Amino acid sequence: MNDAKPGNLPAVDVLAFDIFGTVVDWHGSIVRELAQRHPEVDGDAFALAWRAGYRPAMARVMSGEQGWTLIDDLHRGILDAILPQFGLAHLDEEARRDLNRAWHRLDPWPEAVEGLQRLKRKYTICTLSNGNLGLLTNMAKRAGLPWDCVLSAEVFRAYKPDPATYLGVARVFDLPPARVMLVAAHHDDLAAARGCGLRTAYVERPLEFGPAHPKDVRPQEGNDLHSRNLLDLADQLGC
Amino acid sequence: MNDAKPGNLPAVDVLAFDIFGTVVDWHGSIVRELAQRHPEVDGDAFALAWRAGYRPAMARVMSGEQGWTLIDDLHRGILDAILPQFGLAHLDEEARRDLNRAWHRLDPWPEAVEGLQRLKRKYTICTLSNGNLGLLTNMAKRAGLPWDCVLSAEVFRAYKPDPATYLGVARVFDLPPARVMLVAAHHDDLAAARGCGLRTAYVERPLEFGPAHPKDVRPQEGNDLHSRNLLDLADQLGC
Repeated sequence: MNDAKPGNLPAVDVLAFDIFGTVVDWHGSIVRELAQRHPEVDGDAFALAWRAGYRPAMARVMSGEQGWTLIDDLHRGILDAILPQFGLAHLDEEARRDLNRAWHRLDPWPEAVEGLQRLKRKYTICTLSNGNLGLLTNMAKRAGLPWDCVLSAEVFRAYKPDPATYLGVARVFDLPPARVMLVAAHHDDLAAARGCGLRTAYVERPLEFGPAHPKDVRPQEGNDLHSRNLLDLADQLGC
Repeated sequence: MNDAKPGNLPAVDVLAFDIFGTVVDWHGSIVRELAQRHPEVDGDAFALAWRAGYRPAMARVMSGEQGWTLIDDLHRGILDAILPQFGLAHLDEEARRDLNRAWHRLDPWPEAVEGLQRLKRKYTICTLSNGNLGLLTNMAKRAGLPWDCVLSAEVFRAYKPDPATYLGVARVFDLPPARVMLVAAHHDDLAAARGCGLRTAYVERPLEFGPAHPKDVRPQEGNDLHSRNLLDLADQLGC
């Protein structure tokens, strides 16, 4: 418990982290994988196309049009759909399986591991991602992300921004929602968490979509904290 | 993947650990908590009585007599039932809540942390416990247990020895059951895992029930490995 806080810092016990874009650089990592395997392909366009299929695929699951599906399988469905557009329709099953696992091999943003190590000294740190448990665990082991606990949409059988995910973290730790803070680079994720009573911290990731597509990272109202990166967040939280 | 193994070592990728008795000393830790709070109580008898209520309570849940219940809540129900037998019926709500959290503060067996650190270099290590996620995470953070992933009956909505738990670990990591090894100090747990196709390693914990009640830890047939403790297991697995 962290009841005594300097200044107006929110008194929270658990920091739950969005992963794709917030902790790891999905765009740069997918571009890197493409450059290694298929240098003739436009990696930037490929990464954006793969990621663009993500929300519609989750929406089909959450609407009930499709049964519960892990992100690994959603990623694979999108991959199969976009390969022909990039001249890669010839890839066999093994090559597709391996390429799909690129999402298990995403690199962290440069300061993320050190930031998490500092934050972990004072807080319980966990993932709260739509990625499945195996993906998040493999990613963490490869990248050295020091989670106390890996939580996922897979545990709650609902994708963010469903309230079951945010409230699920509070329930797992037997805490009021206000003792949990979501850390994310996406204002819609943070707004949904706030709607459930969680505290929120925004993280600037201006290059989430690659250097050709800079993101507006100006502060927006409503978040408890606005941070440049996870080291800045650790500074702000006195870690 | 660990395909090339010296000798006849089983080729597994994930080690899933039973927790109570296997990694942490529940008996000694509960005795310690009682000695600190209520030195007049027979801590050995108290620990055994608390633990004895555990299987019947899980059986009521698995039979459907009781809805899905976290171990924290089962522990609390048993605690409330046994307090009068030990002259502690006067404990108020706050004292009961705090005492019940003793299960979040169990101490690891002396070599467990070092053993897990070594095993983690080569394998993905996770919990597979009937304890709930919050309990397991708080325990790991306090004790320094370096899990790659915390898995629990809570994730699978079934208690061990339900096959959904053992097969659930394989499913989470997208592996055949034979690529997962259960590590436990209990032959019934290991036998159920083997029935699902997992590999198994027994760990001797002769003092699980306290020095007054030594346990028979002689090897039994069927397990792939029989180890004195987690350092011995690391030696046997070449870690």
